Amino acid sequence: MLGRLYEKQNCSASRALELVGERWSLLILRDAIFGGYTRFSQFQKSLGIATNILAKRLEDFVEAGLMDRRPGAAGEQSEYVLTRKGMEFKTVIIALTEWGDKWVRPGPIFYCNQSDGKPVEVQLRRAGNGKQADLADVVAALR
Amino acid sequence: MLGRLYEKQNCSASRALELVGERWSLLILRDAIFGGYTRFSQFQKSLGIATNILAKRLEDFVEAGLMDRRPGAAGEQSEYVLTRKGMEFKTVIIALTEWGDKWVRPGPIFYCNQSDGKPVEVQLRRAGNGKQADLADVVAALR
Repeated sequence: MLGRLYEKQNCSASRALELVGERWSLLILRDAIFGGYTRFSQFQKSLGIATNILAKRLEDFVEAGLMDRRPGAAGEQSEYVLTRKGMEFKTVIIALTEWGDKWVRPGPIFYCNQSDGKPVEVQLRRAGNGKQADLADVVAALR
Repeated sequence: MLGRLYEKQNCSASRALELVGERWSLLILRDAIFGGYTRFSQFQKSLGIATNILAKRLEDFVEAGLMDRRPGAAGEQSEYVLTRKGMEFKTVIIALTEWGDKWVRPGPIFYCNQSDGKPVEVQLRRAGNGKQADLADVVAALR
């Protein structure tokens, strides 16, 4: 029995959740990763989230190294740009979407290679076995 | 640009998060899926979570169809047993762990096939391509 394995919450899933374990955080990441959003006003419009919560989440992402804040041009908002650490959360968002597609309600988003339009999916496989999709080439599209 | 794709939060990732988009929910699922926990007291001891929050999360999981509640034997607690819907969340937990391993701090958990001890991982691949691990055979182990 693996019961004691997880005592004290000591595992990487738990540590990941300290950074992203909240519904708004995950939706902001989704919008940044697949919507290409970088500005406060874009996230706010997409999610209808309270501005104080959104500001806090974006600052937390900068502090945790998931986003870089870049000053906007004169009169423009700062941009919040995903780092590699943030961008690699893509796989988690896709896994979550696939579970929701199957067990809650399907659509309207699917994921595909931008280069050839072929659908991609998350698979649980023996480690190191075979060719994976290029993460940077995987995009969201409407069914 | 995919900007408008996600407006109104209309996607399966968002719908999934309505059921599981909270840190405690995800940790309870992790303990149920990989620790084999079924009883209130097991989750409580593992997570140190407030009892009222734990009770609410377990009831929410029953209502959402991720767990079945089974009456305990005389004098024993009810058991909360994962349904197929709950068990298939396994892939999301593994994806989250892998991200945490790489970007926060590695270990001590890894995932492997119970039958042969070989490590498994989440891969992003062209849909329908090749042989996946048997979800029921994938377990957590200590490095």
